Amino acid sequence: MTEYQRIVLAARPRGAVQPENFRLETATLPALQDGEVLVRNHFLSLDPYMRGRMSEAKSYATAQALDETMLGGTAGEVLASKHARFAAGDHVVGMLGWAEMGVCDGALLRKVDTSRIPLSAYLGVVGMPGMTAWYGLNHIMKPVAGNTILVSAASGAVGSAVGQLAKLQGCRVVGIAGGAEKCAYVIDELGFDACVDYKAGNLAADLARAAPDGIDALFENVGGPCFDAALPLMNAFGRIALCGLIAGYNGDDLAVRNLRFMLTSRLSVRGFIVTEHLDLWPQGLAELAALVAGGKLKYRETVAQGLAAAPDAFIGLLQGRNFGKQLVQLIP
Amino acid sequence: MTEYQRIVLAARPRGAVQPENFRLETATLPALQDGEVLVRNHFLSLDPYMRGRMSEAKSYATAQALDETMLGGTAGEVLASKHARFAAGDHVVGMLGWAEMGVCDGALLRKVDTSRIPLSAYLGVVGMPGMTAWYGLNHIMKPVAGNTILVSAASGAVGSAVGQLAKLQGCRVVGIAGGAEKCAYVIDELGFDACVDYKAGNLAADLARAAPDGIDALFENVGGPCFDAALPLMNAFGRIALCGLIAGYNGDDLAVRNLRFMLTSRLSVRGFIVTEHLDLWPQGLAELAALVAGGKLKYRETVAQGLAAAPDAFIGLLQGRNFGKQLVQLIP
Repeated sequence: MTEYQRIVLAARPRGAVQPENFRLETATLPALQDGEVLVRNHFLSLDPYMRGRMSEAKSYATAQALDETMLGGTAGEVLASKHARFAAGDHVVGMLGWAEMGVCDGALLRKVDTSRIPLSAYLGVVGMPGMTAWYGLNHIMKPVAGNTILVSAASGAVGSAVGQLAKLQGCRVVGIAGGAEKCAYVIDELGFDACVDYKAGNLAADLARAAPDGIDALFENVGGPCFDAALPLMNAFGRIALCGLIAGYNGDDLAVRNLRFMLTSRLSVRGFIVTEHLDLWPQGLAELAALVAGGKLKYRETVAQGLAAAPDAFIGLLQGRNFGKQLVQLIP
Repeated sequence: MTEYQRIVLAARPRGAVQPENFRLETATLPALQDGEVLVRNHFLSLDPYMRGRMSEAKSYATAQALDETMLGGTAGEVLASKHARFAAGDHVVGMLGWAEMGVCDGALLRKVDTSRIPLSAYLGVVGMPGMTAWYGLNHIMKPVAGNTILVSAASGAVGSAVGQLAKLQGCRVVGIAGGAEKCAYVIDELGFDACVDYKAGNLAADLARAAPDGIDALFENVGGPCFDAALPLMNAFGRIALCGLIAGYNGDDLAVRNLRFMLTSRLSVRGFIVTEHLDLWPQGLAELAALVAGGKLKYRETVAQGLAAAPDAFIGLLQGRNFGKQLVQLIP
């Protein structure tokens, strides 16, 4: 009987997520059955979508169950396998949740090559966030060289990839991020043409100055005032990939006041969930991996240490305290 | 020197349109030049889009100039022609504006056949409003038989056509209209499956009851509370044709609070202006004309009498006082 630590959802949040919404507890591994794999997690992925799952409101996915392991992407190593496609020692990414280890049937498990790309990157730029960027940019925003692209949460796991991919396609890329340090990183390290600090207090004016020719396509991660400030700047027939609305995840008023520009500028807006387009993942992940291995796609990680640090790191992610992809490292 | 009456924009409205925003005056016809046509207007079309043109805010079209004839669609008769394609006596629709007559170069003039379809219908169901319905339904909402379609301003010139066209395609059609009389007309005369009275005070609940299987595609004419009530009912991958936002045309708060459903339900939203798709008009107008002539597409008109009645009729249109297509008749 092997015991392990895990974090379960103890109570659904009312408003902002609190540490009390989670509970760290000890669980016992079941015996491995035929077709199953035992995985030790090296990294947990923390992502904004998890906030939605913590509530019971209507959404695209069923809610996270109370007293069950918090869901989430993981990267780790196979400890034991009774599955033909996996062997002990394999590096894998999966959906084992906020836990030191777990048993799964292999359906959502994917073997990864860590010889050229670090294991953690498969939870970020070469994983779900990278695919989110790749899909939204190429299949919804469909930019052409010379277009101006706007990306909110530009220093984050998704936004940083959107902007760099758009630069590689010859676009002018403007980001929105919180604080001077993140904005400097977005411009100096990621190569965006401009980055507006939404905390500086002049969002609309700063955005207009950063996009003097208007905005042809927008990758929206945030909602709220950022989205409202972007809408009047959209050019005719602009495209909006609606990926996230983190500004409203705690139930804050997300009212959009500039809806009329969707009409007068004849915009196309599409909400999307990248896991609904799994047929495109092999192509997208291959392209992302090649760019990362070739040094053409950069990423940054904020790594919390130890399972017990996950709740606070997740709360920080929702507040924008992270810088780049937020991970939790379980194996030093 | 022939004199005629016209109505010009005297002052831009602040908030709600007032009679003082217009001025009735006498003008003098210019001498007819080669390539020009002199048209006497029988009917003026009054349409919500005109409210936008009266303001100087950024939009898809330039603003209506002060002290110039109010723009607008017209149907009438050629009095004299120095244009090869038109002869005296021809029935024509054009864009001669709020005036008893006018001279134009023929570019926006179209000869129409009044043997099977009354002249006034070419300003409604077989004109721009009908094309707006036809385009939004077939090119944005793309319904399939069995879909549930929601149409706001359902008794209006555009909405009534959307719903009937969707019924012909085998959809379940729900309308929103203001007042019991309009709702009864929408169901009994136009054949919608249900119609919700937004003035009854239970919009969200009534809408949920009228669309028990959710909404697959929405034709939005109104915005504001109607739009907010519809968003949570949209089914996954629903389509929204954003045609008008009449609730906000006077500057009222149009805040949309349920934006998150665009994301969680992965909706596609497209704003559109039908005059940008003129290539489709011949096909669309031919289909609409055949349906009207065959009695399969009904319409209703509210007809104000005399040019001087146009401002009040237009103000009534913005308030929902009209019932069906709002016209002004100049020749009894």
